[in-house]
Amino acid sequence: MRFKIKRKKKKTNKIKQADKFQIIPLGGIGEIGKNMFVINYNDEIIVVDAGLAFPEEEMLGVDMVIPDITYLLENIGKIKAILLSHGHEDHIGALPYILPKINVPIYGTRLTLGLLKVKLEEFGLHQSTVLSEIVAGEEIEIGSFRVQFFATNHSIPDSVGFVVKTPVGNIVYTGDFKFDHTPVQGRGTDFHSLAEIGKEGVLVALADSTNAERPGYTRSESRVGETLKEIFLAAEGRIIIASFASNVYRIQQIVDAACFSGRKLAVDGRSMVNVVEIAQRLGYLRIPPFTLIDVEEVKSFADDRVVILTTGTQGEPMSALARLSNSTHRKLEIVPSDTVVIAANPIPGNEKLVSRTIDNLFRQGAKVIYEDTSGVHVSGHGSQEELKLMLSLLRPRYLIPVHGEYRHLIHHAELAEKMGIKKENILIVENGTTMEFTSDRGRILNSVAAGGVFVDGLGVGDVGNIVLRDRQVLSRDGIFIVVIAMDSKTKNIIAGPDVFSRGFVYVRESEELLDEARENASQVLDNLEQKKISDWTTIKNNVRDSIGKFLWEKTGRRPMILPVIMEI
Amino acid sequence: MRFKIKRKKKKTNKIKQADKFQIIPLGGIGEIGKNMFVINYNDEIIVVDAGLAFPEEEMLGVDMVIPDITYLLENIGKIKAILLSHGHEDHIGALPYILPKINVPIYGTRLTLGLLKVKLEEFGLHQSTVLSEIVAGEEIEIGSFRVQFFATNHSIPDSVGFVVKTPVGNIVYTGDFKFDHTPVQGRGTDFHSLAEIGKEGVLVALADSTNAERPGYTRSESRVGETLKEIFLAAEGRIIIASFASNVYRIQQIVDAACFSGRKLAVDGRSMVNVVEIAQRLGYLRIPPFTLIDVEEVKSFADDRVVILTTGTQGEPMSALARLSNSTHRKLEIVPSDTVVIAANPIPGNEKLVSRTIDNLFRQGAKVIYEDTSGVHVSGHGSQEELKLMLSLLRPRYLIPVHGEYRHLIHHAELAEKMGIKKENILIVENGTTMEFTSDRGRILNSVAAGGVFVDGLGVGDVGNIVLRDRQVLSRDGIFIVVIAMDSKTKNIIAGPDVFSRGFVYVRESEELLDEARENASQVLDNLEQKKISDWTTIKNNVRDSIGKFLWEKTGRRPMILPVIMEI
Repeated sequence: MRFKIKRKKKKTNKIKQADKFQIIPLGGIGEIGKNMFVINYNDEIIVVDAGLAFPEEEMLGVDMVIPDITYLLENIGKIKAILLSHGHEDHIGALPYILPKINVPIYGTRLTLGLLKVKLEEFGLHQSTVLSEIVAGEEIEIGSFRVQFFATNHSIPDSVGFVVKTPVGNIVYTGDFKFDHTPVQGRGTDFHSLAEIGKEGVLVALADSTNAERPGYTRSESRVGETLKEIFLAAEGRIIIASFASNVYRIQQIVDAACFSGRKLAVDGRSMVNVVEIAQRLGYLRIPPFTLIDVEEVKSFADDRVVILTTGTQGEPMSALARLSNSTHRKLEIVPSDTVVIAANPIPGNEKLVSRTIDNLFRQGAKVIYEDTSGVHVSGHGSQEELKLMLSLLRPRYLIPVHGEYRHLIHHAELAEKMGIKKENILIVENGTTMEFTSDRGRILNSVAAGGVFVDGLGVGDVGNIVLRDRQVLSRDGIFIVVIAMDSKTKNIIAGPDVFSRGFVYVRESEELLDEARENASQVLDNLEQKKISDWTTIKNNVRDSIGKFLWEKTGRRPMILPVIMEI
Repeated sequence: MRFKIKRKKKKTNKIKQADKFQIIPLGGIGEIGKNMFVINYNDEIIVVDAGLAFPEEEMLGVDMVIPDITYLLENIGKIKAILLSHGHEDHIGALPYILPKINVPIYGTRLTLGLLKVKLEEFGLHQSTVLSEIVAGEEIEIGSFRVQFFATNHSIPDSVGFVVKTPVGNIVYTGDFKFDHTPVQGRGTDFHSLAEIGKEGVLVALADSTNAERPGYTRSESRVGETLKEIFLAAEGRIIIASFASNVYRIQQIVDAACFSGRKLAVDGRSMVNVVEIAQRLGYLRIPPFTLIDVEEVKSFADDRVVILTTGTQGEPMSALARLSNSTHRKLEIVPSDTVVIAANPIPGNEKLVSRTIDNLFRQGAKVIYEDTSGVHVSGHGSQEELKLMLSLLRPRYLIPVHGEYRHLIHHAELAEKMGIKKENILIVENGTTMEFTSDRGRILNSVAAGGVFVDGLGVGDVGNIVLRDRQVLSRDGIFIVVIAMDSKTKNIIAGPDVFSRGFVYVRESEELLDEARENASQVLDNLEQKKISDWTTIKNNVRDSIGKFLWEKTGRRPMILPVIMEI
């Protein structure tokens, strides 16, 4: 009985706690572990987005990075829903890895859920997941929260931001956005909702900072369409155009430009084929009849009657465009009359790969059009003037700049400060930082576990710093293995040392070096045997030190040295 | 006697051959093996520049890449000299690796040779190398050639281009250049010489293509000085400024801005200290007395009286700036009132490292100024209008665009074509392509060996594709080693299989997997033993296949699998 009374006391506390809510970014600040935010009110949690990041250069062998969900697992009973703002990988890509552990309803717009479904089917999770379709403008109830969705513009259709309404105050999450007054498909940003939301009062805004360094306005997506039409008309041969598969607006404009210039359209590359199919089926992409042809049919048409839409804007070595650039594409080959258009900018880190692809396309004789100076790409994120407009509409008391590297958050904060938001009300935090808000005050509490979890093959989280450090050593100078066999009774060495190396030197031309190294190990072992030392750790350490020193002197390299003792 | 007659015949042939010369780029086209050109006339060879390149991402563990000099070694008796255009690494950096094999006189200007000397001393080559100092404007004789040097502007002082004069016609090598009408140190481009050279007639020009994609003019270096003065005056705390060590003009302007704003200057970072010393000694850098202080003394001055000049503009992890950004610098620490200026743009491929450094500096609270939009950097290479001006001055019959990636050569060629140079007279080639010119005709002959030679530690050329491929496999998924001991007489397995892995999984948490893998190998070996199969290749192949399949199914990874058999 005493327990019950205690529990009641706790409950009273909880009602008091309900005068405040907490916001925690588990990803979305800086590079690692993209986009996941937690809103915790009245012991109920809403998760906002669940994205993946691509590995940094030093994360050798890692396929992708997802947010650390330790905090969510510790509070699993409280989680009511996951809200999705749009269908980009850095906002939905972590779901297949998270849903097996946290199975809660997912809310998103039609296209977002359509793209997600494909993933869930791949992972066999489509049966077990509850997907709730929402429409921009709608307001729904989730636990103690009311959530209103508003339409935004971004480089994928059906993007939304949302207001999470609590008795303490309202929280706005902008998602990725730009303001496009001449959008490709009618649906612009819902300025009126944004104005009303601002009027109603916003306690905290989490806002996109990606382009906070860029002055002015981001150009409208529809500008790209005009440029494409000109290029398609002017080109004397085939058009091969690479685009992000998810940018359905861009694809629509490519379709339109193809029709406008009297060309047929062939779609190449698995992800592009998938998205075109989904977007058409869900009504986000309109392709006139008799426009699409199969890649195999390209040959049957005159060169100046064809557009080939493909993937590989980032120079990914296995992508269709990279294969075209180095003549390893199964179905197509570049000919000198081709015009290749790369309708996207390199994502930071991919510059070299893109640059190499462009060089190789030029080598094949193609004309190559690339970079946003040529007008074939515009960003999906708002520049400084748009970030300011958003703040003017929302007038948040607190701003949490999100989405972007640290310096983008700083620049966003500077803009906000100039607009009159108090410096102390702009919270630049790291992933994991817990922020608590009452109706009139926000403060930073402790930090929870956050950061990137590595996905490598089937393993999620099993590759950590030790494995990575080994891969780094192996990648630089390879491995050198010394094997000996020891008599388990006499502790005498009865065979070896034998030496093997991989990734260290070209073995066939380095026999002398390997012989000398073997001799070096032999001497170490002889010395130890004379001293009657037979403990494995000492043997291994001595071999490692001596061989390491020898190889460094001879080659200036430090391979991983692995002594192996077999007891017989 | 017959031989002698034959020889005479050959000589007659040779005199005929002297009606033509050959030009071969051994580096300087595309990314690999930077800047080395061969001019071959009358069986005499002049080598132009000898640069190094930094490794591409996939060249794991490689320290640098130098040109393949097989052709030079095959023609070693003919080589008369190496001419240097300026002191940048991509034009002189390969010399320490080449000089031990090809010891010929080196011609360069004072600063170029000054920088080279430091390298030669490091490699113990200063005694054995003949350095001949030349002065812009001078004309010298080398074998059958006359060579005239002309002053150019670039991001390092004492840069020159040259005309190599032969009876067949004149060859101009521009070196890296821009046209700077307001240079920092009086010496501008020698327009008059260029005009005369053009008037005299240029058969072939090899011209810098680096900025062929950029419209307009490159801004003058002296513009940076104005910006720096403003920044230094406005900053309320310390200035920490990173620059390329070799850009002595930039350093001069930093010195000037420090004096102008009443600040002392501390120089940090080994290469920066070296260059400041050499440039001062040779008269290329003027630092007023009482300006320089030691880094240790920085603390003794008020924050707004100090400038710290350092290295690390490329975010190199071991550089002073990177260490400052993550608080591992031995002598200095960032404080929030600091202004950090990065007076250089990222070299393609370094964007991520630079970006991370900037983020970390912001995290430490510093104000960070970077990118050329802020006016703290200008390029050292001429933009399109400057490339055109060079062509207008030289009026070459043949143009070989060099220095730059393939697409830059293409863009340079397009400019030249628009200016009236015949398309067939613009030779876009790859490294190794031999071009032969008579007084009125150029043509492409065969190709000679060319391409990058990898330097890794002390090894030059001993790391090739096999070693690199191994390193790539190791870097992605690590290594899995299976060791067995076999009785040399009975061919029975008497110990093992033992298994070891590195860089594959975290061993402590994967014991079960490793046990299962060992069991898998055991079964393979049992099967083979039952079938009386004891040949090593079969055993190794079977183990490799079976374990490979098993690990792929369990982990989705493909480590290198190395079966090791010890015979006892």
